Amino acid sequence: MKRDVTHLKKWQQKIHEVIFGYETTAGKLFDVILLVVILASVMEVMLGSVPQIKQEYLLVLNILEWIFTILFSLEYIARLVSSPNPLKYVFSFMGIIDLLSLIPTYLGLFIDGTHALSVIRSIRLIRVFRILKLTHFMGGAEQLGNALWSSRHKIIVFLGTVLCLVVIIGTMIYTIEGGENGFTSIPKSIYWAIVTITTVGYGDLAPGTWLGQTLASALMIIGYAILAVPTGIVTNEIMRTELSRNSGSCPNCKTKDLPQRSNYCLHCGVKLP
Amino acid sequence: MKRDVTHLKKWQQKIHEVIFGYETTAGKLFDVILLVVILASVMEVMLGSVPQIKQEYLLVLNILEWIFTILFSLEYIARLVSSPNPLKYVFSFMGIIDLLSLIPTYLGLFIDGTHALSVIRSIRLIRVFRILKLTHFMGGAEQLGNALWSSRHKIIVFLGTVLCLVVIIGTMIYTIEGGENGFTSIPKSIYWAIVTITTVGYGDLAPGTWLGQTLASALMIIGYAILAVPTGIVTNEIMRTELSRNSGSCPNCKTKDLPQRSNYCLHCGVKLP
Amino acid sequence: MKRDVTHLKKWQQKIHEVIFGYETTAGKLFDVILLVVILASVMEVMLGSVPQIKQEYLLVLNILEWIFTILFSLEYIARLVSSPNPLKYVFSFMGIIDLLSLIPTYLGLFIDGTHALSVIRSIRLIRVFRILKLTHFMGGAEQLGNALWSSRHKIIVFLGTVLCLVVIIGTMIYTIEGGENGFTSIPKSIYWAIVTITTVGYGDLAPGTWLGQTLASALMIIGYAILAVPTGIVTNEIMRTELSRNSGSCPNCKTKDLPQRSNYCLHCGVKLP
Amino acid sequence: MKRDVTHLKKWQQKIHEVIFGYETTAGKLFDVILLVVILASVMEVMLGSVPQIKQEYLLVLNILEWIFTILFSLEYIARLVSSPNPLKYVFSFMGIIDLLSLIPTYLGLFIDGTHALSVIRSIRLIRVFRILKLTHFMGGAEQLGNALWSSRHKIIVFLGTVLCLVVIIGTMIYTIEGGENGFTSIPKSIYWAIVTITTVGYGDLAPGTWLGQTLASALMIIGYAILAVPTGIVTNEIMRTELSRNSGSCPNCKTKDLPQRSNYCLHCGVKLP
Repeated sequence: MKRDVTHLKKWQQKIHEVIFGYETTAGKLFDVILLVVILASVMEVMLGSVPQIKQEYLLVLNILEWIFTILFSLEYIARLVSSPNPLKYVFSFMGIIDLLSLIPTYLGLFIDGTHALSVIRSIRLIRVFRILKLTHFMGGAEQLGNALWSSRHKIIVFLGTVLCLVVIIGTMIYTIEGGENGFTSIPKSIYWAIVTITTVGYGDLAPGTWLGQTLASALMIIGYAILAVPTGIVTNEIMRTELSRNSGSCPNCKTKDLPQRSNYCLHCGVKLP
Repeated sequence: MKRDVTHLKKWQQKIHEVIFGYETTAGKLFDVILLVVILASVMEVMLGSVPQIKQEYLLVLNILEWIFTILFSLEYIARLVSSPNPLKYVFSFMGIIDLLSLIPTYLGLFIDGTHALSVIRSIRLIRVFRILKLTHFMGGAEQLGNALWSSRHKIIVFLGTVLCLVVIIGTMIYTIEGGENGFTSIPKSIYWAIVTITTVGYGDLAPGTWLGQTLASALMIIGYAILAVPTGIVTNEIMRTELSRNSGSCPNCKTKDLPQRSNYCLHCGVKLP
Repeated sequence: MKRDVTHLKKWQQKIHEVIFGYETTAGKLFDVILLVVILASVMEVMLGSVPQIKQEYLLVLNILEWIFTILFSLEYIARLVSSPNPLKYVFSFMGIIDLLSLIPTYLGLFIDGTHALSVIRSIRLIRVFRILKLTHFMGGAEQLGNALWSSRHKIIVFLGTVLCLVVIIGTMIYTIEGGENGFTSIPKSIYWAIVTITTVGYGDLAPGTWLGQTLASALMIIGYAILAVPTGIVTNEIMRTELSRNSGSCPNCKTKDLPQRSNYCLHCGVKLP
Repeated sequence: MKRDVTHLKKWQQKIHEVIFGYETTAGKLFDVILLVVILASVMEVMLGSVPQIKQEYLLVLNILEWIFTILFSLEYIARLVSSPNPLKYVFSFMGIIDLLSLIPTYLGLFIDGTHALSVIRSIRLIRVFRILKLTHFMGGAEQLGNALWSSRHKIIVFLGTVLCLVVIIGTMIYTIEGGENGFTSIPKSIYWAIVTITTVGYGDLAPGTWLGQTLASALMIIGYAILAVPTGIVTNEIMRTELSRNSGSCPNCKTKDLPQRSNYCLHCGVKLP
């Protein structure tokens, strides 16, 4: 899937090969270095947030921060210059992430506290998959994505039901428990209901009256039962795509006996898993 | 599935078309406006429960509350008037919910504290599915419902077992821990056992003695194992209905080779998924 | 499956019919009354453990307790007398439970605090399934039991692995955190590891050092991954028994095309689901 | 799979038979005794960490510790001496564990606090499976291992996604909540995000602002949905290996109609389940 770069100048093509390509040694080396730099910059932002470390190594962290930012800025410019279609890159998912991981540092010159947002650059780590050319990893990711996407209707219905339930039960517990046990408002009580139904259970809010505890028990047992639903949905979808991949039929329109190695269903045009 | 409204007067038919129908532009518009008003009224009740907001905007909230209530009252009357069978509407699920979301505000004139119950109107949000005419969403919901319904026997057996277990273990922990660590009564100890077996784990009650902690550990590991059971049941049902939908056989009596697009099994009369 | 009671005297046969049978009106009525009494007695023990209720209604509760105990004692004697094989009943599961739910009250005359153990009689509630003659419920229970039993090897391997993991990680956290954050001994730290890996998370013990929190994070993510294993095992077993029930093959030796409605596999003699 | 021990001397062969073998009575007896001693030594280390027990029984525990260590040292030497290939044993998994469970006690003579590490000997408990010659248990373990190994690509993609999500959300909550509610650094906030997304929910850190609680609610519901993914993956793999075992096809290259009881696929050479 090489992109057409013939309309670019020679030096642009060279940069393109190094930055976007991964066939040449230079291209591979660039990707590995980029990955290490991204990892290091994420670590730097994290460590910079720990008070003790910040106090002692403030200068070092600041210098590192600016080195990383300048490196990423240069990389961004190089990508812009060598891209056959710069606008497409700018508005692509990775292009937006690349830009967003630059802005916080520059913004930090004028506004305080935006610094921590630099961690957005951790999203850039997904470049790792491209580097290792782990096509089978991407296959796994794609299959998972397909499974989730195929079951989107059921998942939305499920989430809608959960949200309704959570609003109703949150209001009930607010009426029952009142402000004494921390249920000071309906939104806060809904937060408690979500904490309970997802079985997280922080315990920062917990019912104190016997009626509240009875309601909470009911909510937990209901949550226990409906916890099974999303699992069932996703398992079903994973097995369905798996089965159809093996049998050469389309998971969408069920057409059977598709020619081997088809990428799209010849009947309904859906992308095959 | 248009209902027979020929025995109604002209003006009733017109209202019916707007309120119950969703083919005409007016009908669609009505549904969208209704949804926005419901959402706004749920938000209003929620915000009204936050002390800071209530103090500052009491008047605004009160006015909004009455506007919403009057609007919903008018809608309720319009539905009654234009329905071909008013009694059927009144005692339908949506009819009861529509009425219940009106009452709390009127009751609030006489009795204090019923106000929060207005959130019951959040159930009205399920009208959203009809508005978007998302038949494939309803298909998803129906399939989920079928899966849960088919496995009701197993789910009841499962819940019965869990309840028995929880009563036994709750009593044991009450005997072991006593009142010092908060296990002041058997019902409260059963509440703790439910919190533990569903893996919610608030931590408002936690065993303090080594014997109690051993029992709790056993309960958690048992819970870990039986957590798998409802998931297995639901997954199995989802896949079963899925398979039979694809193969054209009845999930109830297993009759095969049903005519395509049948809605009911020609052998046992069960509704097909 | 009527038991042979021909060697009993007439009056014994009559009692047997009422107590053990459920075909006659008297038998059904007896079962329903028994169930209500059991439920009432469990409620009485629970309420008796709540300090406020106990203080106010001590006399009433004591009288009720003795009424229930005498009723259950009479029932036990009646079962003994009318049973075709009394010893078999005494040592059957239900027979032991019936006896165990009598003893605590009598013991309470001599020893204090045994009273709460009366809740053991809640196990007697499983008689409910027999009363309602819910054979399809029992089918559900049996299928679940089969699924768990077939996967016992995998579940034991799984639990063994989890226990080893929990001992190792518990010791590590004990070494890392020490007594300051509550990890005062290895057994207590293992208790914490179980609380964490099962995602219960009380929070009565929580790591305070960064190394401890890192280890805890690793444990949680591992727990997240292996939580999937028992679910997979049980789902697989449920579907396997389901499939073989539909296809008429033996889940044990895979013999196919068994005669319909067989109860045992004609090849290996295993009980069919 | 008897190992070739013909090049060993007679007395070495005899020791080998007892220690490594389990066909003879002596070999079985050795294995059972070893298991009991391992169990006892693990119990001793655990009890020794409980302050009250340590104070009272310090001498007994110390004597026991040295008895166990000397027994294990003798066993280790015997294994070395009687092994046909001592180096292979030393660097095998069990060999390393055997050695590691000896070192802490000896180290304890010179350095303080290494004592607790002796619990590493609990890993030695996996010898239990060999003792009971539970080949069907090992079959279960192998099948589980296969299922996890086959889905390693998907599990890595999944864990990568979870880690990215956790870093992003951890940073967001750190920015929103700040130090007042305990979110004093980004690593600590990431720890909170892991505690939340795995539904453990200790409650040692919990959001206090309404924005933080909203973000936490979103994280929990997302976690709820993606909790289903690893379960789906593992269930799928377990069923796939199960199906192919029954149908005699290769889970790797899908070659069908393999000769019964093959251990390796005749086409791609992969080990069959």
